[in-house]
Amino acid sequence: MYTITQLLALVNTEIENAYEKREPRQLYQPIEYSMSVGGKRIRPILCLMACNLFVDDIQAAIKPAVGLETFHNFTLLHDDIMDKADVRRNKPTVHKKWDENTAILSGDAMLIAAYDYFLELKSNQLSKVLQTFNRTALEVCEGQQYDMDFENQFLVEETAYIEMIRLKTAVLLAAALKIGAIIGNADTSDAELIYQFGINMGLAFQLQDDYLDTFGDEATFGKRIGGDIIENKKTFLLINALKKAPERIKPILEQEMEDEKKIETITRIYRDLEIDKLAQNRILDYYNKAEYFLSEINVDQQKKANLLEFLTKLKSRIA
Amino acid sequence: MYTITQLLALVNTEIENAYEKREPRQLYQPIEYSMSVGGKRIRPILCLMACNLFVDDIQAAIKPAVGLETFHNFTLLHDDIMDKADVRRNKPTVHKKWDENTAILSGDAMLIAAYDYFLELKSNQLSKVLQTFNRTALEVCEGQQYDMDFENQFLVEETAYIEMIRLKTAVLLAAALKIGAIIGNADTSDAELIYQFGINMGLAFQLQDDYLDTFGDEATFGKRIGGDIIENKKTFLLINALKKAPERIKPILEQEMEDEKKIETITRIYRDLEIDKLAQNRILDYYNKAEYFLSEINVDQQKKANLLEFLTKLKSRIA
Repeated sequence: MYTITQLLALVNTEIENAYEKREPRQLYQPIEYSMSVGGKRIRPILCLMACNLFVDDIQAAIKPAVGLETFHNFTLLHDDIMDKADVRRNKPTVHKKWDENTAILSGDAMLIAAYDYFLELKSNQLSKVLQTFNRTALEVCEGQQYDMDFENQFLVEETAYIEMIRLKTAVLLAAALKIGAIIGNADTSDAELIYQFGINMGLAFQLQDDYLDTFGDEATFGKRIGGDIIENKKTFLLINALKKAPERIKPILEQEMEDEKKIETITRIYRDLEIDKLAQNRILDYYNKAEYFLSEINVDQQKKANLLEFLTKLKSRIA
Repeated sequence: MYTITQLLALVNTEIENAYEKREPRQLYQPIEYSMSVGGKRIRPILCLMACNLFVDDIQAAIKPAVGLETFHNFTLLHDDIMDKADVRRNKPTVHKKWDENTAILSGDAMLIAAYDYFLELKSNQLSKVLQTFNRTALEVCEGQQYDMDFENQFLVEETAYIEMIRLKTAVLLAAALKIGAIIGNADTSDAELIYQFGINMGLAFQLQDDYLDTFGDEATFGKRIGGDIIENKKTFLLINALKKAPERIKPILEQEMEDEKKIETITRIYRDLEIDKLAQNRILDYYNKAEYFLSEINVDQQKKANLLEFLTKLKSRIA
């Protein structure tokens, strides 16, 4: 069984120099930059771990794994234009370092290049893998659209919110796992189980992000605490607070306030309403479901050590 | 053999209602709009004609043909953002009718949706078709990048210009034909011949566009004559004029002038230098090459009537 460090090395070696010699440079340099800025390579590593669950030789999954990372980085590149974000992973975003047209076109080329990584698959796997990938890629766009729609919506239902984060975040993690499983020749039932493992892990992960943005520790979370509150972002916390709060409290949740005061006030209301506990419980629910789906997969339990460790590490982020 | 009218009907039926029920509407409406604005459906029709050259039953090629049209419309959608174009086919462009973020994201979804149309192909064809399509899609991006690069370049070599229009225009026409041929189970040699037919037809078509923009008839050309001259666009005409003109004339080619005077002056210089004849000859060269490659394809000459008629119609645009 490969260690995570080994898998990371396989992925990074495949990414290195991939666009070095391609012309025009103005098109491929931003792709190179965007792929090299780093990140944790979660999706390709999940893909390889899933493949390794079923077979020892994961060679055929390396390129598809990088295809998933390429797609993920493409979404970040275009999302950053739409969100007018200037910085990503402490570096200037592509549309800032170059310009918006370059970011649009390089992003397009990156999305196309992502497909290239699947085309060496054996033809009996190619169709299955691309069906999963393509459906997922469209779902990610749908998730991004719902997210943008919610900004202009006064009231967002919890179910609509969960569906949005499922589409925007969970399906790609789940697809990465499922694609790894397909390349490892898993049967349909195991491929579906690992997909559901990924969905629940993804939902837990995203809700945890909402939770930590308010209740996390700035040093470990890596972002400034309270950002969502200041932006009035319709997170799991705010949606539930708006539902649970007594009428006299509701206006406070939507009131304009100076930043520090707003963070303090809203956080206190969340605690009073026990929204923190509600979120924690829901996060644990999803983690438990994820663990259940993993346990049901029909391979030796010891082979699941990597994925279980991965899940436990994510889970441990919770306060 | 299907008539062009029948092929157009097949294509339009497949396009109709394709996104009608898909949610979120904010994502799919712009795609629907962009697909319905029309155009001549040249790429899907070429794909179907190529398929019909080799087999009678072209059913399997209809969706891939629409995939090619979807991809083409995606490039127009994103190009219009980059070019800040407000109108396309007499209707507001997507980023004007909605906004830029919508245009970026809907374009992305459209590019992904284009791949969907190939996924029902038999697995032995899927890989071949996608390899052709994916390489072509990247080349179209490269062509668009070279086109943007040229805007900031003082001198553009003719070979670089031809390479740019090959990438930006010709390869997609050629790929449409080749993909139709592959689905029609053409052998490798015929698939390559029809690809070369498409490349030469595409180059002829694009140079003709350059020619007609200056020397065409406003009523038949459908656009205002002289647009390229006013924009100082580095067309085949300008590139060759800059090369051929005596030193004392060159500054005039780059001089600022009032629009009407500029069109008149530059057109006269072009005629004096016989750039019009040079362009006409080159266009005919490419059309003749296209005809040659078509004639070499190993099927009954009478089956080529549709493609030959198509080529003749394009050719007849020349003054």
